[in-house]
Amino acid sequence: MTKILILGGGGMVGQKLAHRITTTNIFPDADLTLFDRAFPSDGVQAKSVIGNIANPATAQGLIAARPDVIFHLAAIVSGQAEAEFDLGWDVNMMAMWHLLTALKDEHDASSGTYRPRVVFTSSIAVYGGPYPDKIDDTFLSAPQTSYGAQKAACELMLSDFSRKGFIDGLSLRLPTICVRPGKANAAASSFFSGIIREPLNGVEAILPVADTVRHWHASPRAAATFLTHAAMLDTDLLQGRRALNLPGISCTVGEQIEALRSAAGQKAVDLIKHQPDEVIMKIVDGWPRDFAPERAIALGFQAESSFDEIIRVYIEDDLNA
Amino acid sequence: MTKILILGGGGMVGQKLAHRITTTNIFPDADLTLFDRAFPSDGVQAKSVIGNIANPATAQGLIAARPDVIFHLAAIVSGQAEAEFDLGWDVNMMAMWHLLTALKDEHDASSGTYRPRVVFTSSIAVYGGPYPDKIDDTFLSAPQTSYGAQKAACELMLSDFSRKGFIDGLSLRLPTICVRPGKANAAASSFFSGIIREPLNGVEAILPVADTVRHWHASPRAAATFLTHAAMLDTDLLQGRRALNLPGISCTVGEQIEALRSAAGQKAVDLIKHQPDEVIMKIVDGWPRDFAPERAIALGFQAESSFDEIIRVYIEDDLNA
Repeated sequence: MTKILILGGGGMVGQKLAHRITTTNIFPDADLTLFDRAFPSDGVQAKSVIGNIANPATAQGLIAARPDVIFHLAAIVSGQAEAEFDLGWDVNMMAMWHLLTALKDEHDASSGTYRPRVVFTSSIAVYGGPYPDKIDDTFLSAPQTSYGAQKAACELMLSDFSRKGFIDGLSLRLPTICVRPGKANAAASSFFSGIIREPLNGVEAILPVADTVRHWHASPRAAATFLTHAAMLDTDLLQGRRALNLPGISCTVGEQIEALRSAAGQKAVDLIKHQPDEVIMKIVDGWPRDFAPERAIALGFQAESSFDEIIRVYIEDDLNA
Repeated sequence: MTKILILGGGGMVGQKLAHRITTTNIFPDADLTLFDRAFPSDGVQAKSVIGNIANPATAQGLIAARPDVIFHLAAIVSGQAEAEFDLGWDVNMMAMWHLLTALKDEHDASSGTYRPRVVFTSSIAVYGGPYPDKIDDTFLSAPQTSYGAQKAACELMLSDFSRKGFIDGLSLRLPTICVRPGKANAAASSFFSGIIREPLNGVEAILPVADTVRHWHASPRAAATFLTHAAMLDTDLLQGRRALNLPGISCTVGEQIEALRSAAGQKAVDLIKHQPDEVIMKIVDGWPRDFAPERAIALGFQAESSFDEIIRVYIEDDLNA
């Protein structure tokens, strides 16, 4: 039996991951627990715990059962972390600290035998410009948002607790996940999904940036696959560098729109309304556009090979589901 | 009048900095306060406060006077942070968090007018191998020690609090400071100074690594100069990247020994005893060896131009003082 805990299990990626775990044989006899502030009413059936990850007692309570694999996806999204500074640091950094110290206490209490795999969803927001054309695996992390700084600080803590043997962790710098099902969220990146999802559902979408904006994407299905792949990975192969840039698709908003036209025709494209938003433009302008994620590819991480494929995944997994 | 606070003002670099401030006209009418756990009995004459930087109330108390410039040098050194994990994170990371949140509170209480310059001594220990021949200003920070991880996490926090306008901070990744006067300390790098200082004082020195080990050095005088230069710098020039690799001298232990021979002859060199230490070799093996610190040089930071010069500085400032 593999005891699995998903922090942020009520969120979109958490639910995709929970679905993958409960509908495949990746973890035979998985004993799955989901933790979040709230859960969707039609969500994946699993043990679920409601609470606040920023409360130090929360991690202690969840860790007492000694889960073998912990996926830490819980976060305040980028737009909210920028608007609510204290809350962002509290949830996005301090919660990781509480989690790691609780895990170290449990490691010590077990005389060192308890050393769980911890898979943390970091983000390409750990980068800040100016950028090279493609960001390689040795480029500096100089975040220009609070969200990015918090994720980068978590990577450092996770890496050091791992190096000392208290846990066995790795950080996945997820591409922007697109096409997100459901409603728009407070992430500044929300429109990247909205301009595809809304038109495919016959609804108007707002495009707040120019169509020349280039960005880095992978599907929710790819995200769930990254996470389970990371849970099974031989971390010795990471050679002490436990944060990974993951594969994705680099494309412009214009190319996204062309892929939408191929999938659903001009009537879908006509539902996209350009409505520039200075705040979002400024945040997105600081984001990376393209990567050469050679380490992750060599380690077997796989994403889609075109934005058309990303749209097909949305249609298969969400629109038609 | 410029109100200046030095956290870690009782330490070696803190004292060199305090000496520079009190004996030059860099800050006319400087009102200097030193904070540390303890002070040398023959130290620089200035207001001094004794306390524990890891106590959250400490920063609040020190910040109430609204210092214009804060030098944050207080730290557990690398060897001790590796041996005492909890203490290292507490002093080297959490104390920065307490400082920054206290400064933000004071900023808010001043209706945003209080926004001090904060100069933080980070370290080249934020880097971890494998390295290129020279580390440039865009190389990733992937620390392989707790000390390095803690310093890197502080850089991220300092940068984000600065970006939001609560403070105006920068992080200086100091080379290993050599030749340190006084006694050996718990830093794994202590021997780099010891093999020069002890022989110049007619005392035996232990060399725990091979003489082929290459490392990156600057003098205590250069460190004090870096710090005051950083306090006066136009931080707009940093363009959001507030952590700087500083200039230094890259040389091998063998080259250090040759410089000692030039300065003090074979009888000094004969006082160095090679006594390999696996623990120190392993730590030092993970450290960077050479840099191309183009940004800092362009911003006017200056170090010595040879290890011979580093030895001359020690003889002038400490041995003959």
